[in-house]
Amino acid sequence: MSDQNPVSNFALPHVKELHAYTPGFQPKGDGWIKLNTNENPYPPSPAVEAAIRSALGDSLRLYPDPLSSELRREIANLHRVDASNVIVGNGSDDVLNLLTRAFSNVEEKAGYTFPSYSLYPVLCGIQNSGTIEIPFGREMDLPLELVAECDAGILFFTSPNAPTGVGFTNETVRKLLQRFRGVVVVDEAYADFAKENAVELLREFSGLVVTRTLSKSYALAGLRVGYALANAEIIEALDRVRDSYNVNRLSQAGGLAAIRDQSYMKAIAGKVQRTRDFYYEELKALGWFTYHSEANMLFTEPINSKGEKGPTVALELFEYLKSRKILVRYFPGHALTASFLRISVGDEDQMLRLSETIGQWLKNG
Amino acid sequence: MSDQNPVSNFALPHVKELHAYTPGFQPKGDGWIKLNTNENPYPPSPAVEAAIRSALGDSLRLYPDPLSSELRREIANLHRVDASNVIVGNGSDDVLNLLTRAFSNVEEKAGYTFPSYSLYPVLCGIQNSGTIEIPFGREMDLPLELVAECDAGILFFTSPNAPTGVGFTNETVRKLLQRFRGVVVVDEAYADFAKENAVELLREFSGLVVTRTLSKSYALAGLRVGYALANAEIIEALDRVRDSYNVNRLSQAGGLAAIRDQSYMKAIAGKVQRTRDFYYEELKALGWFTYHSEANMLFTEPINSKGEKGPTVALELFEYLKSRKILVRYFPGHALTASFLRISVGDEDQMLRLSETIGQWLKNG
Repeated sequence: MSDQNPVSNFALPHVKELHAYTPGFQPKGDGWIKLNTNENPYPPSPAVEAAIRSALGDSLRLYPDPLSSELRREIANLHRVDASNVIVGNGSDDVLNLLTRAFSNVEEKAGYTFPSYSLYPVLCGIQNSGTIEIPFGREMDLPLELVAECDAGILFFTSPNAPTGVGFTNETVRKLLQRFRGVVVVDEAYADFAKENAVELLREFSGLVVTRTLSKSYALAGLRVGYALANAEIIEALDRVRDSYNVNRLSQAGGLAAIRDQSYMKAIAGKVQRTRDFYYEELKALGWFTYHSEANMLFTEPINSKGEKGPTVALELFEYLKSRKILVRYFPGHALTASFLRISVGDEDQMLRLSETIGQWLKNG
Repeated sequence: MSDQNPVSNFALPHVKELHAYTPGFQPKGDGWIKLNTNENPYPPSPAVEAAIRSALGDSLRLYPDPLSSELRREIANLHRVDASNVIVGNGSDDVLNLLTRAFSNVEEKAGYTFPSYSLYPVLCGIQNSGTIEIPFGREMDLPLELVAECDAGILFFTSPNAPTGVGFTNETVRKLLQRFRGVVVVDEAYADFAKENAVELLREFSGLVVTRTLSKSYALAGLRVGYALANAEIIEALDRVRDSYNVNRLSQAGGLAAIRDQSYMKAIAGKVQRTRDFYYEELKALGWFTYHSEANMLFTEPINSKGEKGPTVALELFEYLKSRKILVRYFPGHALTASFLRISVGDEDQMLRLSETIGQWLKNG
């Protein structure tokens, strides 16, 4: 990922131009409060660990089920669809990658909203896809007119969106689906923290793909399990471009246990929602503009003790928090994000520490 | 993977034409002797299970190290290269896929020997790469002249080869590298069962890539860990097209423990070698032509009780063994393979059962 090494001369021209996705900083050592990668502050269901322990031993020498069949069936039951409507990936990033490979190339463009998950342009770059960036305005509503005009074959957007946390209603998503004729990928990485999701729209729209991950609401970012729901013909296309053994034995076993323990997931997602809503009010009380969030993050525009806001102020608070071992995320690359910080919702103690530290920053500023 | 479902009309034209890789049959239920997917008959090192148990718990909620840094360093130490010469994949299949993505497309062709690992044409199909198939002759020597003439940008071959088990000396591989100017991928999935490997050639040839897997000699097919060794510029290109979180926490932890326990790997690989060489003599004693193998498989041409051989005989024995719950692999698609069966080397008991069952087939035939 370093830019110091030159790339092999043998590499394809577009590969030499690629900018790799920048993962959030993963600190070494203890004592950090990690509010920078939208991880869940709570541990995964105890059933996950038990299932993985059972899957250890002699069977690790055997290849995994190439179809993740049992996991597909369980996911299908959860969402009341058929197993032929489900594909499982090595994280939802894997599924998003397969979507770019099956549906986009130099001629068949991929569209994506911006700012949203910054992996979409990275995946399109790897695939050398033609791209259409569909910009949000400051209010962060889905830009329906721009989507309708766009001639992409496949469209990606995140709902609730990242980094803002803004959710889109099914009424809005339906309007988008009525006006866009290609494949529409609704990346629902954060849907378990939201009021609504687009799964019910699958029956109406054959070009709709809903992606999900176990990294956020199920607290399993380290296990790499994600999935997509779509009509069987789209799933078939994704299976054709998929690595046969993309999900290992332990991830299949752990993923299955996680999906089966819905009450645990709902309990920890509920705690995150309550902390989020409480902290949203705290930020509002500071007078900081903060998007109303339906995800496990808050996107807020800090104001310093002199009443100033903007990129310098956001960066200053980012650095101040980091120097006190609190990590949040800063996206300097775009006018709509550069004055903001994205704060992943932690547990109550972590958010209290954050509040105190922001208080010190305001006092010392 | 089914051919019953039609593919989405939105899919790219080449995706509609794809034939997915056919993984070996994974039987349900007990009592099977699985000699069909080159898995190791012995369990992985106990250190692997211990390491995975330690990696469980709260940290599963956190993303894995995107670079698999510790594992890269350990692999680098093992092969006496720098960590910048190593990339880790979700199985070596992941790395092979990245190689097709960074170095081949419609114009930049990928070459591969045939018969070899049947994933190469599948990956090229997914990438829509131009391909050059370089056929082996019956003696299964590396076709140096054909390689030298071929205008591919990247070339894949397996050493020791599959399904034959035939190994290629470094003298031969060096000749190939001297005559081919592009990227040369030596897929060394089976190298731990062989006399020689190409790692020492990395110093001489900047276009050489050596891939390895933990699925065979380390008995970890279920964990999905593989890697490639190459010069830093090639690794950089692969990192740019790689999924950031391709190797999960448990695979990184287990892979690290496996690589550190070289004496265990060598012990089980040694047992497989001895069983293989013993069984090779058995097949010779039956009068069956069998390639001299440096891998964990034997490729043999069965002769029935009437002295007949050929595709019908090979298929008949395949079915006979399957009806007795012994799975081997049959590749009907090519003149050089259709009269043969590929037998993965099991433990001594399994090979004894196989011998007895072949004896019954010969008696009843």
